Amino acid sequence: MIYLRQMSKFISYKQAGVSIDAGDESSKQIYAHLAGTFGPRVIEVKNAFAGMFRLDYDEKLFKRNYKNPVLVACTDSVGTKVKLAIAAKRFDTVGIDAVAMCVNDMLTHGAEPLFFLDYLGVNKLEPGIIEQMVKGIAAGCRLADCALIGGETAEMPDIYNKGDFDMAGFAVGVVERKKIITGKTIRKGDVILGLASSGLHSNGFTLVRNICFKKAGLKMTDRPDEPGGAVLGDVLLEPTRIYVRPIVKLLSQYKVKRIVHGMAHITGGGLVGNIPRVLLKDCNAVIKKTDWPVPKIFTFLQSKGPIEEREMFRVFNMGIGFVLIVAEDFASSIKKKLTRYGEKVYRIGRITTGTGKVVLEN
Amino acid sequence: MIYLRQMSKFISYKQAGVSIDAGDESSKQIYAHLAGTFGPRVIEVKNAFAGMFRLDYDEKLFKRNYKNPVLVACTDSVGTKVKLAIAAKRFDTVGIDAVAMCVNDMLTHGAEPLFFLDYLGVNKLEPGIIEQMVKGIAAGCRLADCALIGGETAEMPDIYNKGDFDMAGFAVGVVERKKIITGKTIRKGDVILGLASSGLHSNGFTLVRNICFKKAGLKMTDRPDEPGGAVLGDVLLEPTRIYVRPIVKLLSQYKVKRIVHGMAHITGGGLVGNIPRVLLKDCNAVIKKTDWPVPKIFTFLQSKGPIEEREMFRVFNMGIGFVLIVAEDFASSIKKKLTRYGEKVYRIGRITTGTGKVVLEN
Repeated sequence: MIYLRQMSKFISYKQAGVSIDAGDESSKQIYAHLAGTFGPRVIEVKNAFAGMFRLDYDEKLFKRNYKNPVLVACTDSVGTKVKLAIAAKRFDTVGIDAVAMCVNDMLTHGAEPLFFLDYLGVNKLEPGIIEQMVKGIAAGCRLADCALIGGETAEMPDIYNKGDFDMAGFAVGVVERKKIITGKTIRKGDVILGLASSGLHSNGFTLVRNICFKKAGLKMTDRPDEPGGAVLGDVLLEPTRIYVRPIVKLLSQYKVKRIVHGMAHITGGGLVGNIPRVLLKDCNAVIKKTDWPVPKIFTFLQSKGPIEEREMFRVFNMGIGFVLIVAEDFASSIKKKLTRYGEKVYRIGRITTGTGKVVLEN
Repeated sequence: MIYLRQMSKFISYKQAGVSIDAGDESSKQIYAHLAGTFGPRVIEVKNAFAGMFRLDYDEKLFKRNYKNPVLVACTDSVGTKVKLAIAAKRFDTVGIDAVAMCVNDMLTHGAEPLFFLDYLGVNKLEPGIIEQMVKGIAAGCRLADCALIGGETAEMPDIYNKGDFDMAGFAVGVVERKKIITGKTIRKGDVILGLASSGLHSNGFTLVRNICFKKAGLKMTDRPDEPGGAVLGDVLLEPTRIYVRPIVKLLSQYKVKRIVHGMAHITGGGLVGNIPRVLLKDCNAVIKKTDWPVPKIFTFLQSKGPIEEREMFRVFNMGIGFVLIVAEDFASSIKKKLTRYGEKVYRIGRITTGTGKVVLEN
C-alpha cells in the first residue's frame, strides 16, 4: 500500500501521530519471518485481507484427513513480562512466550496447533523492534509446528507510553472429536506426571518485578544465584517452554487406547489453580512437593518477598509447566517416552477420592 | 478458580497490583454474553483451557459439510477509537467495531465467519466495564453470525494508564477452496459496487481526534451538523457496519456462477489503498466520486482540518465501507439483491485496463 503524505498546511496522517511508511517497511521484514513458518497447507494470496490455511493435507476432493474435526482456539498475552523485555531491550523472546501460552493451553485438550496470529500494540512503529518481536513469535511457531499466518500491529501513542508495548496471540488447532481430552475419564489411582518448566514462564511478573526491583533493589544485570551464575534478566526472560512436540507425539502413539485422562497447562494459579480445571468433583489430586526439584529462581523470590509457600504455589508453576494425569498402568511407559522426547518428567502425585481439589503434601 | 490471598506481612498477588477476585467475578458475567452467541457447533467444556468449535454440522461420522475447507483467519484492533469510548464512558460499542474489522476482512475472500476471540488489555479489572466491553463484542458476533468462544483480559497497570484499555479481536471462518475469492478473475468492464458505511468505521481516529478536539476545540457533546443533530460522540462512536449477512447470502445465491470477482473491505488507506489489494496489475478501478453521497462527518472533518480531498480518500472510507467488483451482466441483479438484504448499494465505478491503481474521477 503506497501512502502519500501531504505537505504544507494540510494535516497529514503522519503529523497526527501515525506513520504509515514505517508500517510498510516493517511489513516486508515481518513477511520473511512469517514465510519461514509456512507449511504446504498455508495458501498465500498477495495483499490478502486474511490468512488462509487448508484443513486437509491433499488435493483429492473427497479424501478427508479428519473425520469429525473440532477446531480449538485460544488467546493469551505475555502479560507484564513485556515490561522486562522493555527494560532489557530484548524483543525477540517474548514472542515465544505468546505462542507458548496459547498452544500449551490447546494441547491440554489433545489438539495439535495449526496456525497462529499475533497482535502488537505499540507506542511507535519502529520497524527494527517490531521485526525482533515477530522474529520471536515466528520462532515460537516453528517450535509449536504451527504457521504464523497473520498479525496486526497497531501504533497507538495515546494508549502506550514511550517504549511500551503489549503482545497478545491467537492460536487455532484441531482435534478429532472422539479424541478430545477433558479430564472426565480421570479416576482414583491415576498418576500425575509433571513436565519441567523452563522457569517462571509468563505468569506472576507483576509480583516478580515488585520483589526483584522494588523490594530487593536488584538490576537486570545482577546475578541472583552465585557470582558466576546467570544474570537476572536472562533468568526472568527465559521463554516459556512449548510442550507441543512431545505431547502430540505421545498422543499419536496411542491411537486406540485413551490412557491420557487429563492434562493441565500450569499458568497463573499454579498447580493448585490449574489442575482442578480438569478434575471431576469426586477426585482430589494429591501432589508431593518434594518429588521434583524447585528451580532456584522460585526459592529466591520466596525468600526475598517474603512470600508464604502456599502463595508461591498459587502464583507460580514452581518448576512444573505442564501436567498429565494418566492411567496407572501406563505411567512408566509414558514417562519413559516423554523423557526420550526430551522432557524432564517427574511423577509428582496421584488421584484419590476427594472434592475436586489439589492437596499439597510434603 | 479459587484464589486465596495472604494477610499480614506476606506480599500477595493483589497487593502487587493484580486482583484475581475481580477477574473471577468478571468471568461469570462475561460467560452469559458468550453463551448468547453459541450455536450447536460450539462444544462447551467447563473450565476449559480453550474454546472448541465443530467444523461440521452433524453427528454422522463420514458425512462432511465441507469438501475442501480452507480456514480463514484475521486479527485487528479497534485502534485509537478506544480513546473516544474512554472519553465518552461508552464501552459497549467498540466491541462491535472489533468484530466488524475482522469479519469484514475475511468476508472479502468469500469466507463465512465461524468464531471469534477477543483480547482486552486494561489498567484495572473493573467487572462492570469489562462486561460492557464483552457485551459489545457479543453483539458484534451475533450480527456476524459467529460464536464468541473465548477471550483474554489482561490487567496491566504498568502498561495501561488509568482508565485506558486496548481491544483486539481474532476471527476464524471457512470457505470452500474452490470458492475462495481473490480478485484474480477481475476483468475490464467489471462493475464496482459500493456498500454504504455507517460512518467513520474504525480508522483514522488519531487524525479525527486531532481535528475535532485539538484543532476545532469541540466536545463530545457538541452537535457538529446542526442544532438538532446528533452529538459528536455518537457520530464518532457509531459502530462499524458488519456486512456478513448480505454478502454470505448473496454468495449462497450463486452456487455455480462466479460472478463476484473481487471484494475489498475499506479500512485504513480508504478506497484508494484497499481496492488495489485485489486488482491485477493490468487493471485500474475508475471510481466516480460523485456517484454516492459522502456523509456529513467527512466533509466536516475535511473543512476543519483542513485536509486535502486526496488525503481524505487515503485515510477515510468516505461513505463506502465495502466494495464488490462484479461481472457487468450481473451488476444490476446483485445491486437489487443487496438492497433487498438491507444495504445501501451504489454503482461507484468500473474496471478499465490499467496498472493496478484506483483512479478517482469527478
